[in-house]
Amino acid sequence: MKSEKISELTTNRLSVYLRCLNDLVTEGAKTVSSDGLAKRFHLNSAQIRKDLAYFGEFGVRGVGYYIENLRDQLTKILGLEKEHRVAIIGAGRLGTALADYYGFTQTNFSVAGLFDADSKKIGQTIGGVEIFDIKNFADIAKRDKIDVAVIAVPAPFAQNVLEQVAEAGIKAVMNFAPTPLRVENDVKLKTVDLTISLESLSYFLAQPNGSNSKNLKSNSNRRRIKQVEKV
Amino acid sequence: MKSEKISELTTNRLSVYLRCLNDLVTEGAKTVSSDGLAKRFHLNSAQIRKDLAYFGEFGVRGVGYYIENLRDQLTKILGLEKEHRVAIIGAGRLGTALADYYGFTQTNFSVAGLFDADSKKIGQTIGGVEIFDIKNFADIAKRDKIDVAVIAVPAPFAQNVLEQVAEAGIKAVMNFAPTPLRVENDVKLKTVDLTISLESLSYFLAQPNGSNSKNLKSNSNRRRIKQVEKV
Repeated sequence: MKSEKISELTTNRLSVYLRCLNDLVTEGAKTVSSDGLAKRFHLNSAQIRKDLAYFGEFGVRGVGYYIENLRDQLTKILGLEKEHRVAIIGAGRLGTALADYYGFTQTNFSVAGLFDADSKKIGQTIGGVEIFDIKNFADIAKRDKIDVAVIAVPAPFAQNVLEQVAEAGIKAVMNFAPTPLRVENDVKLKTVDLTISLESLSYFLAQPNGSNSKNLKSNSNRRRIKQVEKV
Repeated sequence: MKSEKISELTTNRLSVYLRCLNDLVTEGAKTVSSDGLAKRFHLNSAQIRKDLAYFGEFGVRGVGYYIENLRDQLTKILGLEKEHRVAIIGAGRLGTALADYYGFTQTNFSVAGLFDADSKKIGQTIGGVEIFDIKNFADIAKRDKIDVAVIAVPAPFAQNVLEQVAEAGIKAVMNFAPTPLRVENDVKLKTVDLTISLESLSYFLAQPNGSNSKNLKSNSNRRRIKQVEKV
């Protein structure tokens, strides 16, 4: 670790841990060990310990983690105790699909508005969400306390949209346009590449008998990995 | 590592490495070290070495990785030297958005068909992709050599669809319905949860000054992490 930055892979994993802990709370469990958590949800226990160690000492020797406490801590670390208001830019197929995405309704993210440049779309409502004129983005963002923007426009328009939302003071942007974007340092840009998930499936299909475990090297190499993981 | 399975987080990272290597090939670079790769693309060099070590010895001491060679190896490991034919189940907003997703056209995944139960939609074409009757899924999957299914139906229908595509012999399924699904052991199911990306942005917003590095503990803890990473 040359840098002290927490990587997105780490925060993504914290999100996953949080989901797992929520499941365990629902089931009425009180404590769980990193091994127990790993086994139950197909995670890596060394990775769990390492990820959590960035943020503090949550585990209790011989007990493991107090589930509700750890859930609350992760919620706070991820900034999820506060509501976030999301603007979706682009009221095409993907944008309207996202406005309607049931997953968001179960979180503390709420879609505040769709934005588009097409006058035929402006004023319409999709899944309870109004489509506004992108020209008025800055004003509406301020009025509706929007703090996250989702870019769902065709790739050639994405950079322009990004600059517009950044100018309006938005610091967190999720980009679905499959194109690299340039961004100011104080804006966090996350590009969602749906092909990565497909490639993961491709890996699975490439294994003989559809198994996940066939591409490994010799035993000696496996042993070395084990040591790395156990530190 | 108690299990020999390669986790999805690992295969996801391999996909990311592959993209980075493609960028470097385009730029004309010949070799890169794990540190160089990490620095350039904001990755973790110890993680890169560990991930690659699962599959072989790709690095050359004092040289690093031969970029084209490593790219070809990762392509093969991920099964990306062969074309995959994708069926999208659900011709609603999300399904049609995915059929149209530009990112897929740049990969070796091609959308073979959309499937729906709505007779008004069947026979239509979206972005060059025909909407078929879900009733005929098994026949069309066989005829068109479909090997990946994407579930983009509302959550209550997802389990039923999953069983139907599994019965038709599909072994790799990407699920966008935000609901847990039960699946046979020989089918690889990947549920894409778009809220995880949003939560990662939330983490960023929760940091003072929008920085990524403020939530760390004391120096001593940081040092400990450094040691873990360097093994």
